[in-house]
Amino acid sequence: MARIRFITFEGGEGSGKSSHARRLADWLKGQGREVVLTREPGGTPGAEEIRKLLVQGEAARWEPMTEALLHFAARRDHVAKVVQPALARGAWVISDRFADSTMAYQGYGHRLGAEAIDLLRRLVLGDFAPGLTLLFDVPVALGLERAGTRNVAVAGADGRYESMGEAFHARVRDGFLAIARAEPDRVAVIDSAQPMEAVAAAVAAVLRARYPGEIG
Amino acid sequence: MARIRFITFEGGEGSGKSSHARRLADWLKGQGREVVLTREPGGTPGAEEIRKLLVQGEAARWEPMTEALLHFAARRDHVAKVVQPALARGAWVISDRFADSTMAYQGYGHRLGAEAIDLLRRLVLGDFAPGLTLLFDVPVALGLERAGTRNVAVAGADGRYESMGEAFHARVRDGFLAIARAEPDRVAVIDSAQPMEAVAAAVAAVLRARYPGEIG
Repeated sequence: MARIRFITFEGGEGSGKSSHARRLADWLKGQGREVVLTREPGGTPGAEEIRKLLVQGEAARWEPMTEALLHFAARRDHVAKVVQPALARGAWVISDRFADSTMAYQGYGHRLGAEAIDLLRRLVLGDFAPGLTLLFDVPVALGLERAGTRNVAVAGADGRYESMGEAFHARVRDGFLAIARAEPDRVAVIDSAQPMEAVAAAVAAVLRARYPGEIG
Repeated sequence: MARIRFITFEGGEGSGKSSHARRLADWLKGQGREVVLTREPGGTPGAEEIRKLLVQGEAARWEPMTEALLHFAARRDHVAKVVQPALARGAWVISDRFADSTMAYQGYGHRLGAEAIDLLRRLVLGDFAPGLTLLFDVPVALGLERAGTRNVAVAGADGRYESMGEAFHARVRDGFLAIARAEPDRVAVIDSAQPMEAVAAAVAAVLRARYPGEIG
């Protein structure tokens, strides 16, 4: 069966994934494809309301389990109302973050454990999974430095996760890399410490390899 | 081990449970006990924000699974921040709705199934459960008639569940009664079609029987 055209961008703070998700969307649109570029948490009116609960406020506002439940609630709404309908009509869907982020942030970063997050994922999504996940990997210190620069620009409005400390972000990175090791067919690791053009070339190479014959 | 002093009031629309929860709280306070009277969804600032997402808007706003996740997210916050701390300092906690409502409304009413809701409950709450649950049972038509009267008074602001139709509410009632049959030690069924004073007497009798020696 063909790989489904649902591509997720994952990675820690300051990994550059959001810029490259937009760039990939533009590239595919330039080839005449319908592309839905979306993000999590969010992507639907309801999920964006849940996002506000998640990204604003103090770092200790929610327990990790509460947070994981809110992320999966938003994700369920997003998948049912945007992602699956778009895939069904033949569009490509590119999402800036998806279920791997909950595994990495709540499962590893907040130490809820892989088993609890996996159980939630199966309950909420069943077998539904991306056809390809691009994991933007960057050393924690460099990522936080890049994210810090950005957060000064946005005046800290959505900075709840960035404020959680370097040990937390090191566990998040370990979590993402563990997922990539466990699912090499789905997840490709992109070294995003490289210059931007090299990262873009790596993304394009992975796309051509994973969707042979589908991309110009 | 003594029964924990966490008492939940459950039942369908118009069952009268909220009035009797307040009345029980006043009775226990009158005996010099510390009582925390709370409700779900809600009971903490965060859970009240989640409540707004749940009770407002159109009936089809959320899929049943999304709804179940939001209810358990609110519940986790409520249990961790209000219910457990109050029990730990020796207070009685009375909650207007708790986990049985998610089983009855999403598991039975929306047909998500008992297994999915039970899995969520164990993941989120572990072994934590009320010491006593009073199930206010009333025939569906009578309950909706009572609830309809009330909703005219509140101008429909929180009327999302009441708008879901009689077959839905019949499944909800079946769900509550199935829980009561499965857990007779925890759940006592109160016939709330009776006059108010007879219902109050039934509640008092159950309390004295289930917490022997603790209630005057």
